[in-house]
Amino acid sequence: VTTGRIEAFSDGVFAIAITLLVLDIRVPKVAEGESLWHALGQQWPSYAAYFVSFATIGIIWVNHHAAFDRIARSSRTLLFVNLLLLLWVSSIPFPTSLVAEYLREGTNEHAAAAVYCATLLAMGATFSAIWIIAARGGLFIQELSERQVRVLLVRNLAGQVAYVIALGLAFVSAAAALALCGLVALYYVLPGRARG
Amino acid sequence: VTTGRIEAFSDGVFAIAITLLVLDIRVPKVAEGESLWHALGQQWPSYAAYFVSFATIGIIWVNHHAAFDRIARSSRTLLFVNLLLLLWVSSIPFPTSLVAEYLREGTNEHAAAAVYCATLLAMGATFSAIWIIAARGGLFIQELSERQVRVLLVRNLAGQVAYVIALGLAFVSAAAALALCGLVALYYVLPGRARG
Amino acid sequence: VTTGRIEAFSDGVFAIAITLLVLDIRVPKVAEGESLWHALGQQWPSYAAYFVSFATIGIIWVNHHAAFDRIARSSRTLLFVNLLLLLWVSSIPFPTSLVAEYLREGTNEHAAAAVYCATLLAMGATFSAIWIIAARGGLFIQELSERQVRVLLVRNLAGQVAYVIALGLAFVSAAAALALCGLVALYYVLPGRARG
Amino acid sequence: VTTGRIEAFSDGVFAIAITLLVLDIRVPKVAEGESLWHALGQQWPSYAAYFVSFATIGIIWVNHHAAFDRIARSSRTLLFVNLLLLLWVSSIPFPTSLVAEYLREGTNEHAAAAVYCATLLAMGATFSAIWIIAARGGLFIQELSERQVRVLLVRNLAGQVAYVIALGLAFVSAAAALALCGLVALYYVLPGRARG
Repeated sequence: VTTGRIEAFSDGVFAIAITLLVLDIRVPKVAEGESLWHALGQQWPSYAAYFVSFATIGIIWVNHHAAFDRIARSSRTLLFVNLLLLLWVSSIPFPTSLVAEYLREGTNEHAAAAVYCATLLAMGATFSAIWIIAARGGLFIQELSERQVRVLLVRNLAGQVAYVIALGLAFVSAAAALALCGLVALYYVLPGRARG
Repeated sequence: VTTGRIEAFSDGVFAIAITLLVLDIRVPKVAEGESLWHALGQQWPSYAAYFVSFATIGIIWVNHHAAFDRIARSSRTLLFVNLLLLLWVSSIPFPTSLVAEYLREGTNEHAAAAVYCATLLAMGATFSAIWIIAARGGLFIQELSERQVRVLLVRNLAGQVAYVIALGLAFVSAAAALALCGLVALYYVLPGRARG
Repeated sequence: VTTGRIEAFSDGVFAIAITLLVLDIRVPKVAEGESLWHALGQQWPSYAAYFVSFATIGIIWVNHHAAFDRIARSSRTLLFVNLLLLLWVSSIPFPTSLVAEYLREGTNEHAAAAVYCATLLAMGATFSAIWIIAARGGLFIQELSERQVRVLLVRNLAGQVAYVIALGLAFVSAAAALALCGLVALYYVLPGRARG
Repeated sequence: VTTGRIEAFSDGVFAIAITLLVLDIRVPKVAEGESLWHALGQQWPSYAAYFVSFATIGIIWVNHHAAFDRIARSSRTLLFVNLLLLLWVSSIPFPTSLVAEYLREGTNEHAAAAVYCATLLAMGATFSAIWIIAARGGLFIQELSERQVRVLLVRNLAGQVAYVIALGLAFVSAAAALALCGLVALYYVLPGRARG
């Protein structure tokens, strides 16, 4: 399987996972004497989780291309670690739905947010593994300089550390943990800060 | 990320969002002594909303290509504004479902239609932002003449103004607001009237 | 929009619609004292409808390529009639679910099957419209001979006529109508019988 | 329809089916006095089934490319047997959901696991049929040597035999049958063990 095929298949999974997120936002039932505006407002955790997950998958898509643009050829290990990355990406609608539901209910939201942050952490770690496998296997188009490797490492680590902090924060405040995950995505949006 | 990749990924999201719309049309339960024809007829808001949303995403797909055919290269800003456009597009099944549900119930339909029109307005505005970013960033294949810019601006504005009117109309008649959104899509179908 | 783009986008919609069909097959609840085998068997209309719809979309995909392989360039009319075709294709999960549900319930199945057959008829008619538009607009790579046009016409008409008969049959026997729709798909599978 | 088109369409179906699997994992309702962690733990069959189905579709994707890389041209039979393969692949979310649901309930899990294993067996057999049709039809880029054919046959048979054993095992232990299906996927991951 060539890197072109891997990219195309991964893009498909990214596009579907990002679009399936909307299925987690349900049409609210309006209680008697309640306005729809109020009922829609009550659903803010669904919109927040939708936004954070959308941004995160979007960033992973951008970074995935940045990574594969530098990778000349595939290996069996790379192929299956990439499948593992896709497993995390395509599972995101579940923790997204979970954190939205329990933030709304106001109970068990710490556990829900912890599952959410742990999924993003696992996804980020698997993404880092792709860099490491490509580096060790000599799969890059062009050998990276030590400085480039250091920059990449620091940028990747920054995200991982933030996700670990978010995971801890989840047990204190689920909303704050979700917000921190959103900030990680925004951090990678800033120019010159791309993971790749 | 090249413009080719952006187009392919966007096409994927458009295709998925347009196909997910059907999940909002539920198999009706037939009340005792009622015929299925009647129950299906009661669901007209679902078909109407399906049609308007399908046509709108279809038009955005056509116009997106028209835009990217003129754009020679990408920029970080363009990349992320395009992701924002995809966020609106992939969220459309939610307001579609919302307006269909409350039009059928006959209560709160003004709020539901307002959310629907506001989503289309946000999507249209983000689409205009792509043109503006490409123009300011000098990303076009060929410099546009002043006349071309004026024509583009007028066509884009026409849609935006119609969506603003639809948003206001939503508070008077939800069905009329939905119909106006459908007319915007048909307007862009007419030959020589393409946004691009 | 080039014909290549239209084909790629249409392929995306075909692939998604064909894969969404499975969402209509629900995990059965087992009544007390009932075996799961029995409960699964009761769901035969879901499997039958899944199979017929899958085969129909599969055939449309094959024939769509056969058609676009002969079309050299696009036109605005072709573009929007193709969108109309995609509207019918992506709506198929709904009538599929409808006919499966009411065949299982054993009431109102005539109306449900009629809606199903009417959707396939509308899809087939729109597909024929693509041939006619391409012929009238001179969009073919190579002018078709009178004989070729006649063969195409007869093959297309055969499917249309069968769908009309199925629509009438729906009011007598829903299962027979569904079976006839399945036979139409199989007819186009036979060698030398491709619509294109 | 060229082999390139068949591959692209198949990739689309693989990507969608693999991503739809997540819809089978539902947000658990927490019973009074129960923790969310416990409720999430109770859902282990959903995660196990998600993982096995994801790995299986992933492997089929890899092997599908390996097969089509060797196939020079298509035939009508190949086209429709490939559609049959896609039918099995896109149906996988249903047996996945079924086995997860009844493993959780602890009743009828033997029947559910048998349906699951039978679906994978049918998919594997259809995949083998693609090799046979390509071999008999002389569709390969390069004639395969007798040794290559023997190696292919043995590798394919290994998977088929394992699925048959899993099917039998389902009537003894549903969890063991599911685990064996997971082992089949892992077997094909090991280097030098690719079906293709």
